[in-house]
Amino acid sequence: MARIVQKFGGTSVADPERIRAVALRVKREIDAGNEVAVVLSAMSGSTNELIRLTEQTAPMHDAREYDAVVSCGEQITIGLLAMALQSLGISARSWLGWQIPIHTDAVHGKARIERIETAELNKRMKIGEVPVVAGFQGLGLDNRVTTLGRGGSDTSAVALAAALKADRCDIYTDVDGVFTADPRIVTKAHKLDKITYEEMLEMASLGAKVLQTRSVQLAMTEGVRLQVLSSYSEEPGTLVVNEDEIMEKSIVSGIAYSRDEAKITLVGVMDQPGVAAGIFGPLADGNINVDMIVQNISSKDNTTDMTFTVASDDLAGAVKILENNKSALRYSDLISDGDVVKISIIGVGMRSNAGIAQHMFHALAEHGINIQVISTSEIKVSVLIAEDYTELALRALHTAYGLDAD
Amino acid sequence: MARIVQKFGGTSVADPERIRAVALRVKREIDAGNEVAVVLSAMSGSTNELIRLTEQTAPMHDAREYDAVVSCGEQITIGLLAMALQSLGISARSWLGWQIPIHTDAVHGKARIERIETAELNKRMKIGEVPVVAGFQGLGLDNRVTTLGRGGSDTSAVALAAALKADRCDIYTDVDGVFTADPRIVTKAHKLDKITYEEMLEMASLGAKVLQTRSVQLAMTEGVRLQVLSSYSEEPGTLVVNEDEIMEKSIVSGIAYSRDEAKITLVGVMDQPGVAAGIFGPLADGNINVDMIVQNISSKDNTTDMTFTVASDDLAGAVKILENNKSALRYSDLISDGDVVKISIIGVGMRSNAGIAQHMFHALAEHGINIQVISTSEIKVSVLIAEDYTELALRALHTAYGLDAD
Repeated sequence: MARIVQKFGGTSVADPERIRAVALRVKREIDAGNEVAVVLSAMSGSTNELIRLTEQTAPMHDAREYDAVVSCGEQITIGLLAMALQSLGISARSWLGWQIPIHTDAVHGKARIERIETAELNKRMKIGEVPVVAGFQGLGLDNRVTTLGRGGSDTSAVALAAALKADRCDIYTDVDGVFTADPRIVTKAHKLDKITYEEMLEMASLGAKVLQTRSVQLAMTEGVRLQVLSSYSEEPGTLVVNEDEIMEKSIVSGIAYSRDEAKITLVGVMDQPGVAAGIFGPLADGNINVDMIVQNISSKDNTTDMTFTVASDDLAGAVKILENNKSALRYSDLISDGDVVKISIIGVGMRSNAGIAQHMFHALAEHGINIQVISTSEIKVSVLIAEDYTELALRALHTAYGLDAD
Repeated sequence: MARIVQKFGGTSVADPERIRAVALRVKREIDAGNEVAVVLSAMSGSTNELIRLTEQTAPMHDAREYDAVVSCGEQITIGLLAMALQSLGISARSWLGWQIPIHTDAVHGKARIERIETAELNKRMKIGEVPVVAGFQGLGLDNRVTTLGRGGSDTSAVALAAALKADRCDIYTDVDGVFTADPRIVTKAHKLDKITYEEMLEMASLGAKVLQTRSVQLAMTEGVRLQVLSSYSEEPGTLVVNEDEIMEKSIVSGIAYSRDEAKITLVGVMDQPGVAAGIFGPLADGNINVDMIVQNISSKDNTTDMTFTVASDDLAGAVKILENNKSALRYSDLISDGDVVKISIIGVGMRSNAGIAQHMFHALAEHGINIQVISTSEIKVSVLIAEDYTELALRALHTAYGLDAD
C-alpha cells in the first residue's frame, strides 16, 4: 500500500463530466489498495474570470479582497469531486485551506505555505476517507484567505504530499508527461520516463508549462517524488526524481524555449566600475527582472555595449526607466528588440561532459542561425536568437543531441 | 447617528458596474453619519448555476458538499464590494460566515442561524470600518460551511441586524417596496408606506417575493425594524413594523396570489374517524405539505368528498401516493387540477371588522368567479379559483377594498 497525493489541473476538472472521470481515476488508486488525497485546481478559465471581475470592479484593489474572490474556483471543484466520489461509494470530504488549515504567510496574491496541520487528515485517511483539498489557497494572518499565485495548486499538492509523507505526488495534466521538446513543434520529441529535479526546474522556468517552478523547488527540498502524467491516458508519465535514481543519464535531457523574452542593448556606455549597478539598480527598483546579460569588450574610447534581456511584458517599462536615467547612464543609443526567443539545452550530464555548448553553437551555425546572446549554467546552455528561427533551431538541436524518437 | 444593516439582493450586485453603484449607496449612509454593515447575495443567477453543477455532477449528493459549492457566490460579491468601497476611500472588509463566525445548526442546505459573534465586528464598526458580510451562509458543526436555503440572505441580514442591535435593516431589491398587489397585474396598485410583520409574513408566504418568510419571522421575533426599498430609486420604501406603529390601519392592506397550487379531490371517502389521518399521513411521510383542506358534508351513504391543495411541484407525487394507498383509503375517484390559483386578502384590521370575507365572496361573484375552496386565518382570507381568472379577481378585489391609487 502506498500513500499518493493526486493533483488535477483546470482542464481535468473543467465540467461535471470530467470531474466524474477524475473520480474514476481516484477510485482506481483506491481499488489498487492505496491511500489517496486529492488536490484540485479551479475549472479552467474560472480563475481568470474572477480576476477579470476584480479588475472591472476596482482596478487598484486590496490584495486581501482579491484573494477572497479568486479563491472561489477551487471551492467549487472540491465540493463537486467529493460528491462524485461519494456517488461511487467512496468516503470523501472537501477541505478548504482554512479548514485544514494550510497556514501561509500574509503575502496576499502570492503567499507561501508555512505549515499544514495533518492530524485530522491522517486520522480520516486511515479510516479510508479521501480528503479533497482546494489547491492555490491557504489561511493567512487575521483569519484571512490567501492565494499562492499562478500555478499555486501544484505547490499545494507538493506541500501536502510532504506534510502527509506521501510516497508520490501525481500531477495530472493535459499532456502525457515531460517531453524532450515541445511535441507541437518537434514531432520527433519523446516522453522522458525520468527527469531530475534540477532539470525539471530549468525546464519549468524556461516555459515548459507542465509544472510550476515553485512546486519543483519544493519537491526537491522536501524530497517528494513527483510524477507528471495525463488525465486522459492510461500510460505512466514522467517521474521527477533525484539524480541518483537515474542510471543512464543523457547529456542533454531536453530542449526548451521561451518566447517571453525581449532584448535591450545600451550602446556606448562607459566601461568603468559601477556602470552595471547604475543600469540594473533602477530596473530592480522598478520590479523588473533581468535575465541574460552580456557586456562586450571595451572599444578604444573606453566605452562598451551592454546587452540584456527582460520579460516581454516588462520591455516598455524597462525602456522608459532607462530613458529616464539616460543622463546618469550616459549611453549613446538604446536598441530594443522584442522579436527574440531563448533556446536552452538542459541536462545534468553536462556537468561531466565538455564541449556541449560548442556542439550547440555548431548545430545552430550549420543552419544559418545567428546567436545574439549566450548564457550558461551548470546544467544548461541558453542562447538568444531571432524569433523566426524558433522551430528550425529546436528541431536542429533535437537531432544534434540524439533525442529524436525512433 | 444610526446603525444600519443594508442588504442587497442578486440583481443589485449582478455585475461590477452595479456593485460600484451599491458602494455609492453605502457611502451615502456613511456620509449621513451612520454606521453601516452590509449583507450581500450572490450575483443573480450564479447560485442557480452552482446548483446546476452539483446536479450534473451527482444527482444524489451530500448536502455538506452541496453547501461548500453553492456558498461561493456570496464570497465573490463581498470581496468585490469591499474593493469598490475601498476605492471610494471607505475602510471595508469582507467577512465569510466562518470568519465572523455566524454559527448555525448542522442542517445543511437549510441551516438555521444560532448565534453571531459580534465583538470583532463591533470593534471595527466603531472605528469606521464597514463589514461586508456574505449572506446565505454560516458555520456549522465540524468546521463545515452551511447555507440557509432559498432567500437566506434576507435572514442573514435580519439576524445580523439583531445581533448588532441595528436601528434598521434595509433590504434593497429591484422593486420600490411592498405593494397593495402585484403592480404588473394591478396597475392601480400602490406602494405601502408601512406594513405590519404579520401582514408581511402572510404576503411573503403567499408569493409576494420581496422578502423571505423566515426573515420576516425573525424580524418580528427580534423586533428588527425592516425597510424594503429599491436599489434603483431614491424613494423611501416600505417599513415593516409592529402593529402599534401604524396609526391608521386599513382593513385590507394587500392582495396576494399564488399560482403554485394544485387541487386534489378524493370522491367518496368514508366519513368516519381516522379518515383524514389516513389520507394526510402518507402525504406527510412523502414530504408533501398540504395547504387548504375542505371536507364536504356527508352524503346519505356515509361517504364524503375531501378536497385539498398541494404545491404544484408536488402534484404528481401526491397523486401517486394516494393511488398506491387506494385500497386502504377506499375512495371512489381521484380528481386533480393544476390550473388553480390561490387569491388572498390580508390585513390586521380584519381582526376588529366583521363581514370582510363576505365582501370578498360578493366581489368575486359579481365578476362571475367561482370559488372552489376557502380558508381563513385571523388576518387573511384565501380562496382557490380557476387560474384563468387570476387577473380579473385581483383587480376586482383591489377595487372592492378601496385600494386603488388615486
